[in-house]
Amino acid sequence: MTIMIDEINSQPKVLEKVLAKSRKGVRDLCREVRERKIELIYIAARGTSDHAAVYAKYILEIHAGIPVAFAAPSVITVYGGKPGLQNALVIGISQSGKAEDVLEVLRHAGRQGSLTAAITNYEDSPMAKEAAYHFSCMAGEEKSVAATKTFTAQMMIMAMIAAGLSGGGELMGELETVPAKISEFLADFGVPDRIVNKYKDMQECFVLARGTNYSIALEGALKIQETCYVRAKAYAMSDFYHGPLALLDTSIPVFLIAPGGLTDEGNMEMAGVLSGYGIETTAVTNDAGIKGMVSETIWVPPGLSDFTSPFVTAAAMQLFACKLSLAKGLNPDNPRNIKKVTITR
Amino acid sequence: MTIMIDEINSQPKVLEKVLAKSRKGVRDLCREVRERKIELIYIAARGTSDHAAVYAKYILEIHAGIPVAFAAPSVITVYGGKPGLQNALVIGISQSGKAEDVLEVLRHAGRQGSLTAAITNYEDSPMAKEAAYHFSCMAGEEKSVAATKTFTAQMMIMAMIAAGLSGGGELMGELETVPAKISEFLADFGVPDRIVNKYKDMQECFVLARGTNYSIALEGALKIQETCYVRAKAYAMSDFYHGPLALLDTSIPVFLIAPGGLTDEGNMEMAGVLSGYGIETTAVTNDAGIKGMVSETIWVPPGLSDFTSPFVTAAAMQLFACKLSLAKGLNPDNPRNIKKVTITR
Repeated sequence: MTIMIDEINSQPKVLEKVLAKSRKGVRDLCREVRERKIELIYIAARGTSDHAAVYAKYILEIHAGIPVAFAAPSVITVYGGKPGLQNALVIGISQSGKAEDVLEVLRHAGRQGSLTAAITNYEDSPMAKEAAYHFSCMAGEEKSVAATKTFTAQMMIMAMIAAGLSGGGELMGELETVPAKISEFLADFGVPDRIVNKYKDMQECFVLARGTNYSIALEGALKIQETCYVRAKAYAMSDFYHGPLALLDTSIPVFLIAPGGLTDEGNMEMAGVLSGYGIETTAVTNDAGIKGMVSETIWVPPGLSDFTSPFVTAAAMQLFACKLSLAKGLNPDNPRNIKKVTITR
Repeated sequence: MTIMIDEINSQPKVLEKVLAKSRKGVRDLCREVRERKIELIYIAARGTSDHAAVYAKYILEIHAGIPVAFAAPSVITVYGGKPGLQNALVIGISQSGKAEDVLEVLRHAGRQGSLTAAITNYEDSPMAKEAAYHFSCMAGEEKSVAATKTFTAQMMIMAMIAAGLSGGGELMGELETVPAKISEFLADFGVPDRIVNKYKDMQECFVLARGTNYSIALEGALKIQETCYVRAKAYAMSDFYHGPLALLDTSIPVFLIAPGGLTDEGNMEMAGVLSGYGIETTAVTNDAGIKGMVSETIWVPPGLSDFTSPFVTAAAMQLFACKLSLAKGLNPDNPRNIKKVTITR
C-alpha cells in the first residue's frame, strides 16, 4: 500500500468535514462580498492549487456571476506592478500556506484594503495569518508529495463560496452529494488493472477535456507527470484544435475526461476526431455514447452534474496515476526532483 | 523560400505601420477607459492570439495597474454564465476576426453595456463590427497557417494600450525601438543552421521562461508543434518547479527564453538546475552569464527591456520553428490536421 492511495481513499471523509465545518466562514465571507459589491475575484495559486483555481473560475463565473482573474505573481514580485484590487476579493490557495509568491499577492492586496481569503491545510500558516478569512482543507497532514485530498478540499471550498454567492440552494444541494459519489466510484468502479497494465510502458500522453473538467485534465496530467514521469500534456479541447492537433500520433494515447453533461456535444465531436485519426483513446466517462467511440473506458457513476463530476474524475485520474506508478515499479509517494513545498521567489 | 519566412521578415514593417496608424484609436480608447473608471480588462482569445493576451496581461497589470482576466468562453457559450462585466473593458483578439466563441464573449459584453474592443486582421470581420473599437493588425493577408506577423502586431496593439494607460511616455518610447530591434536580429543574428541541424531529429522539447517572456515560451512551443510536429511543451519557470521538474530527462532538450532583464535571477537559477541535471539546453538570450551556463545560444541583440524583448524572442522562436521544419523536410506553411481559421462552438 502507498500513502497516496490512502489519501485518495480519505477524500470522501475530508470533504464531508469541509462541507460541515466551512459553512459559517463561507456565509460570512459571502455576506462581505455582497456588502462590498465585489466585482472581481483574483486568485493566486501554483501547481495543483492552480488547477483548483481553474475549477473555481468556471463555477464562480457561472454561479456567482463574478469574473475571475488569475494572478501572475511575478507581476508583483519581479516587476513591482500594483494592479488595482480595491474592489476585488483576493484568494490565495496553497496546501502548505507557505507559497512565498502567493503570500506576496495577499500582502499586496492587504495593503490596498482588498478583501482577502486564504485556503490552506494549516491554520497557523503564513497565508492563513495574512488573509482576513482562512479556510482549512481539514485534510490532516498530506504525506504523499502528490497532492490529492487537499486538491478536492480546495475545490470544495471554492464551490461552497460559489454556492453562497449564487443566491439559491440548488448548487449547495449538488455539492452535498459529492462525498457519496466519490465513495461510490472508489468502492464500485475504480480503475481496472487491465487498463493500467495496457499503459505500463507509456512515455507520453495527452489529457483533454472541455468546460469544468478542464481543471481535471490539467491536474490529471500533473499527477501522471509527478508519479509516473510520463510526459502528459493537458489541453482544453477548444485550444487543442488550434495547433496541438498537428501532434496527434497513433503512438501517443489520449485520455478524454468526458462525463455526461453540458459539454456532451464537444466531447462527442472530439471522440469522433480521435477515432477518425485512429488514436488509442481512454475516456473517463459515464456516457454510453462516448464509451462506444473510444478504446477504453474508466467508468464513473451516473448522476453527476458539470460541477460535481470534476470531483469524481479527479479521484479517477489520481487513482490511475497512482496505480500506473506502481505498475511501473515506481514509488508514487516520493517523485524524483520535486519537493512537497515549493518556494518560488 | 517559404511563405512563413517572408511573413517573419515582414514584421518590422508591419509593426512600424501599427505604431504609426493605431495611435489615435488607442488614445480614444484609453480616454474612455479613464472616463469610465474601468477596473478590469477581460480578454477573450484562442491559440496564438491567447499568447498575445498573456503578454498583454503582464504589460497591462504592470504599466496600467488594471487587473486582467482571461475569458473561458465556454462559461458563456456552453454554460450560459453571465459574468458581470459592466465596468470592464472586454477585448477580443483573433487573426481572422471570426472566432465564434470569442465573438460570443464580445456579444455578451455588449449586451451588458461593457466597453468593447477587437483586435483582428480584417476591418470587416464579425468581431471588428461587433466591438465599439477595432484595431487592425495591418499585416496584409497572412498566408501561412502558422501565425507570425499578426501575433507581434496583436502584442504591439496591446502594449500601446498599456502605454496609453500608463500616464507616461517612457513605455511608448521603448515600443518605438521594436521594429529596428527585430530588423537587427533578423539581419545580424538569426538562428544558426548548426543549432537547427542539431535538433533535426528532436521529437519533444520543453520551452521555459519567466515573466513577460512566458508568452513567448507558449507561442514558441506552439510554432514548433504546428510546423515541426515536435511535442513542445511550455511552462512558466515557477510552475515547472511544481511537478513537471520530475519530467526532466537528458534525452529531451530544453529551450530557455531568457533575455537579460528583471527575471535574470530566476533565469540563472533555472539554467543552473538544468545544467546540474545534465540537460541539453539552448538559451534565447543576450546575457553572457546565461550563455556560460547552457549548451547553445540563440543570440538576440542587447538593449532590450522586459517589455520589448518578447517581440525579438518571438521572432527568434518563429525563425527556429520555420528552419527546423524545413530541415525536417516538412512544409511549415501547411501543417497537417490544422486549419487557419478554427471555429470553436
